[in-house]
Amino acid sequence: MTDSAQGPLSEFDIIARYFTPSVPAGMVGVGDDCAIIPVRPGYQLAVSTDTLIQERHFYGHTPADLVGHKALAVNLSDLAAMGARPRACLLSLSLPRVDEQWLQDFSAGFHQLCTDSGCVLIGGDTTRSNHGIIITVTVLGEVPVAQALLRNRAQPDDDIWLTGHLGAPYVALQLLGQHWPANPDLLKLALPRLQRPIPPYHWAPELLGHAHAAIDISDGLIQDLQHILGRSEFGAQIECAKLPQHSVLQHLDEAQRYEALLAGGDEFELCFTASPKSRAYILDSAAKAEVAVHRVGKITLAPELQIYGFDGQRLVDEQRFISASGFDHFAQ
Amino acid sequence: MTDSAQGPLSEFDIIARYFTPSVPAGMVGVGDDCAIIPVRPGYQLAVSTDTLIQERHFYGHTPADLVGHKALAVNLSDLAAMGARPRACLLSLSLPRVDEQWLQDFSAGFHQLCTDSGCVLIGGDTTRSNHGIIITVTVLGEVPVAQALLRNRAQPDDDIWLTGHLGAPYVALQLLGQHWPANPDLLKLALPRLQRPIPPYHWAPELLGHAHAAIDISDGLIQDLQHILGRSEFGAQIECAKLPQHSVLQHLDEAQRYEALLAGGDEFELCFTASPKSRAYILDSAAKAEVAVHRVGKITLAPELQIYGFDGQRLVDEQRFISASGFDHFAQ
Repeated sequence: MTDSAQGPLSEFDIIARYFTPSVPAGMVGVGDDCAIIPVRPGYQLAVSTDTLIQERHFYGHTPADLVGHKALAVNLSDLAAMGARPRACLLSLSLPRVDEQWLQDFSAGFHQLCTDSGCVLIGGDTTRSNHGIIITVTVLGEVPVAQALLRNRAQPDDDIWLTGHLGAPYVALQLLGQHWPANPDLLKLALPRLQRPIPPYHWAPELLGHAHAAIDISDGLIQDLQHILGRSEFGAQIECAKLPQHSVLQHLDEAQRYEALLAGGDEFELCFTASPKSRAYILDSAAKAEVAVHRVGKITLAPELQIYGFDGQRLVDEQRFISASGFDHFAQ
Repeated sequence: MTDSAQGPLSEFDIIARYFTPSVPAGMVGVGDDCAIIPVRPGYQLAVSTDTLIQERHFYGHTPADLVGHKALAVNLSDLAAMGARPRACLLSLSLPRVDEQWLQDFSAGFHQLCTDSGCVLIGGDTTRSNHGIIITVTVLGEVPVAQALLRNRAQPDDDIWLTGHLGAPYVALQLLGQHWPANPDLLKLALPRLQRPIPPYHWAPELLGHAHAAIDISDGLIQDLQHILGRSEFGAQIECAKLPQHSVLQHLDEAQRYEALLAGGDEFELCFTASPKSRAYILDSAAKAEVAVHRVGKITLAPELQIYGFDGQRLVDEQRFISASGFDHFAQ
């Protein structure tokens, strides 16, 4: 309604040049009113959507290929948390202006992860924003009927498992947000995990029939685990000594390490629960897929969350993490 | 990353209070990492996404319930253009601040259309924007395997049909954008069709097996019809005398009427093609559904678009509409 600047490429040019990949037989991709996605008998679709806003979810100076990667990665993380296999995605891109170099880099990063994950771009929308870049990706994945890893399925005595190693995104955000003194060496170690998360989307479907409940860690381990506990109506014990630490954490003091491990967001790793009977399967399956997994606690019948520190003693200020409740877009 | 203002409601409060409807058995709705949607045997999913940005796709003073209605309606229009029946939707809402009255009204308008259309809200994302309201809705609909109304299926000698009556959104946009002198009476007549479009989503699935190609009119009849022609590799003749005119057009001069009918966007009515053998079925089926339909031209083997004016003569400046190519978010 109020556009005024001239762009070198039209909306249709942008879509045709950067966002119209070929699609497998049986799908209808970009270029019609809707995309069409077939679903195999015995399967259901898992669907999720996440928005990234410039200067909120990524800084404007982030290389565009990494923005493209992350816009899809955070959504693949949601599919992984259901045990769903990526099938297709839609991309809504709102841009303040046409920057062809940015579009080329962004689409390269996005398409590379599409290819790696088997997630085909089948539709979207391109609009002009008033201010900053806004990216909304919707992903569709396939999961066998009634087997999705729901948050409310944790059982007492389940092990609690984590993929990956935690803490680096927290460190990177502290440094980028200038909450900590500048430290280029530390930032260099921590930044890749913030800018280029790789959720375990390939492996997560292997957990079906073994894991009970799962969630991805986007808002901080304790806050996200509490969603499982709240929905399952059980409690948990977490042993900080067993939490897998990213190597950058060795440069932090103890208080910072607790913060990074328990409240650090933007991890896009999985937290899942499974019966102790599944330990051998999980370790073997993860090793074959080259996914790091660690057992970090257990589900308890008592509906209380207990956090044990690095020394094995109950954490004195555990309530700080429990009530802190991680990242709230409107509260911070 | 840079939030600072305090909102009275948290992100989780907003979702719980306004955006967590109950869902039918077999679906998983808002509250897990993904939504889960079952698909019946013999059906495929049609998926589409559209973004509305404040001051571009709607003015800030638009009543919030109408914004909620339109955010879903423009997406239901895409499902209708495939002949798909609405099943579910996801809502990504980016807000500069928490305004509870706005949220209440917006969600009321959104949920009312969800209920009317049978489209269940099953997921979404709530974030804080830097500037203005940004709404991205993704819809999922069900369509029998291989029966979707694709743009490339028009056949020579097909009739071209339109639902509804065209022109009112164009008039409203001219007045709101102050391209025309203020005229409160005219605006009052035209505005409801701009602010509260009702695409023929209930009826569109009845066209399967009868219509060949379809598109919804969002960017202007001629531009949108050209997508069908380009993909089908045929031409068309359009008879302006047969175009169904909204009653507000009687207040316009002839040049304005042509503009409104041929280039006016934001209609969210259907343009579809069908064999002349289907005329009786279409008229009968539309009458039963209380949908207005009109035959306005035909598909031709010659790949040319010919526009005949109100007097039945070839329109002298028809090329103006053909090359104008309607609304381009980056060119205007």
